Amino acid sequence: MLAEIITIGDEILIGQIVDTNSAWIAKQLNLIGVSVKQITSISDDEQHILSALADAEKRADIILITGGLGPTKDDVTKKTLAKYFNMGFRSDAGALEMVRQIFEKYKRPLLDVNIQQADVPDGCEVIVNKNGTAPCMWFEQNDKIIVSMPGVPHEMMYLMDDEILPRIKLRFKLPAIIHKTILTVNIGESFLAKEIEEIENSLPGHIKLAYLPKLGQVRLRLSASGKEETLLKAEVEAYAQQIIAKVKKFVVVDEDIPLEKAILNIMEDNQLTLSTAESCTGGYIAHLITQHPGCSSVYFGGAVTYACELKESILGVKKDTLAAFGAVSEQTVTEMAEGAVRHFKTDYAIAVSGVAGPDGGTEEKPVGMVWIAISSKHKTIAKVFNFSNKRIQNIQRAATSALTMLLNILKEDLDNE
Amino acid sequence: MLAEIITIGDEILIGQIVDTNSAWIAKQLNLIGVSVKQITSISDDEQHILSALADAEKRADIILITGGLGPTKDDVTKKTLAKYFNMGFRSDAGALEMVRQIFEKYKRPLLDVNIQQADVPDGCEVIVNKNGTAPCMWFEQNDKIIVSMPGVPHEMMYLMDDEILPRIKLRFKLPAIIHKTILTVNIGESFLAKEIEEIENSLPGHIKLAYLPKLGQVRLRLSASGKEETLLKAEVEAYAQQIIAKVKKFVVVDEDIPLEKAILNIMEDNQLTLSTAESCTGGYIAHLITQHPGCSSVYFGGAVTYACELKESILGVKKDTLAAFGAVSEQTVTEMAEGAVRHFKTDYAIAVSGVAGPDGGTEEKPVGMVWIAISSKHKTIAKVFNFSNKRIQNIQRAATSALTMLLNILKEDLDNE
Repeated sequence: MLAEIITIGDEILIGQIVDTNSAWIAKQLNLIGVSVKQITSISDDEQHILSALADAEKRADIILITGGLGPTKDDVTKKTLAKYFNMGFRSDAGALEMVRQIFEKYKRPLLDVNIQQADVPDGCEVIVNKNGTAPCMWFEQNDKIIVSMPGVPHEMMYLMDDEILPRIKLRFKLPAIIHKTILTVNIGESFLAKEIEEIENSLPGHIKLAYLPKLGQVRLRLSASGKEETLLKAEVEAYAQQIIAKVKKFVVVDEDIPLEKAILNIMEDNQLTLSTAESCTGGYIAHLITQHPGCSSVYFGGAVTYACELKESILGVKKDTLAAFGAVSEQTVTEMAEGAVRHFKTDYAIAVSGVAGPDGGTEEKPVGMVWIAISSKHKTIAKVFNFSNKRIQNIQRAATSALTMLLNILKEDLDNE
Repeated sequence: MLAEIITIGDEILIGQIVDTNSAWIAKQLNLIGVSVKQITSISDDEQHILSALADAEKRADIILITGGLGPTKDDVTKKTLAKYFNMGFRSDAGALEMVRQIFEKYKRPLLDVNIQQADVPDGCEVIVNKNGTAPCMWFEQNDKIIVSMPGVPHEMMYLMDDEILPRIKLRFKLPAIIHKTILTVNIGESFLAKEIEEIENSLPGHIKLAYLPKLGQVRLRLSASGKEETLLKAEVEAYAQQIIAKVKKFVVVDEDIPLEKAILNIMEDNQLTLSTAESCTGGYIAHLITQHPGCSSVYFGGAVTYACELKESILGVKKDTLAAFGAVSEQTVTEMAEGAVRHFKTDYAIAVSGVAGPDGGTEEKPVGMVWIAISSKHKTIAKVFNFSNKRIQNIQRAATSALTMLLNILKEDLDNE
């Protein structure tokens, strides 16, 4: 079963907003066994909407449209849908009632343009939108389903979850879809591909393998579609286990979670605690960790020591060390990590100090040079990295490298226990 | 001049990643006077790529393609482009040299698949990708330009900034486009619209005003297109000054920079220094600030005090205060801010403590409740906010609110001097 998503509205085409709706819709559709063939963003233009709809009907069985349902002149979706399906208009009682209630709630006078929001093409089924004034419209034609939803994310999400997805599941006989993701670090995409070449070549046609690289990590994703969910799951799992066995030392986790979440899970399972001491990453590692609910059982906190004075006062780095070796050095980053373990009373600490750039580099310590240390109660390991001359990239790469170092050391320590 | 963006790769269609590339590209194109007609996301499928290209050529003059250029089997863009343009392959010396250098830098052996990354359709112009192993390819056919770029955001961005945008500007006669952005805070979109209604109605047809709301901030963007850049600039500036005069007290800055950068500029100009003490925002404010080069002249650093113990040991919050009022309270956040000013020796400090969620709320202190304090040597001001039940959103909103509070207080203090 194939679907196509069409988003209507200038704000995406001028780059004012990122289209997060489509990714969300695509994810939900995949979970119920509907594959998304294409996502198309177009402007509020009648001709363009008409041709996009006709093209989508050639490719897909289900077409989900968002946007262009507001009360203002630039929103032409409804009028265009009536034209496309050759329908007249009627006022929908349920939709009108909802508009009335919303205006009453916010104590605003009901204008003609708002009453017109309840006008719909007369051959569609109206699905009442409980969170907004634009009704959702369900059309059927030539065994295809076309649904028009508002573009406001929380209105669309509610309609999808409560109405559209259940109706699609009832209406079509959908295949089972299974995805399995394996997160790897310390190995490049092409090396990974070479390592698992034989397994990849042996995959049956209904199971696909994708490589998703990102800043020193590569995600491997197996996707299978078929009739029998339980069988499919077992089959995918078997191939996943073959891959994991082949590249075991690079595998972080066989779930679709970020690196820092995988680390949090390992540390939580082993009742270990963590703190951070960040200079050039400026709180980014702390931010990555604290995005995750429940992180407080592992992560106690940390310091962002941009100024040297704070490296001394919060972390206990020695003035002499800073004077002799400078802030970006093995000695300083080691004392930062050890200071964090000692002062913040955690089992492990991450410390980072480097030249993020774009300025501030010297011949000896160029932009992109970053020292990272991981300290535990037993030992401290420091490593130097040389990244690029791009500040944001250096911050992100340093964070990923620090987390990868921590993961490697954690695994080693846990294996040695 | 019309462009179309085609993103290739299953990861968008299964909803695994949000397509941020397209919004970024669309924004850059609009800035140089190229309108985006359509954004299309398709899978790594030869037939689909071929038909999407043919369709795009009917609609647009410039087609920018991202993705599908990796060394692995699932990446078919290059092969498909050769087929589309009816070209053979050649190995590009410049691209191969870049691949060699990258592998040398990371001390990895060069595999056949990597050498093949330098193979390109023989009629394209290669634009060397300095940040990755996949070359960028520029095709011209029937007066149309088709460019294929890697999908990795930072690789694509540098190629666009350094190569593609300058070449498009040279190749086409584009209109002069002037944008002027005014950042406002403390006022909602519709109230702002009402305040400047008369100015908006008086704008000539070639100058457009857009409202770009985001987390308590509204950016006003005047965009003008025409022939004479100097005249256009003066005209836009005159309207901008009218708007600024009308809503002066809400205006942060009349440049397109983020709120925290505007604050850094004000503080730098007045030789003021800043530190942070973050609990629920977990380093996000520090990260926002330290993204900006040169921030170290203002920002000394701060603490991420997730655990109560660290609120005491690093910031000097009293044990009694925490026991009596809890971590999320006016008293605690006040002591956090004052502790930061005192211990980190800065003129101002931001402190945040709240319930980010999704769990951990109580009746008295529900999820989304966040206390924020701003402290200087003279005074501390604390305020409570009630956001949503979404963790990431709460972190972002708390950060924006804290920065807005700091800005308001800074302005007041500087006005009173």
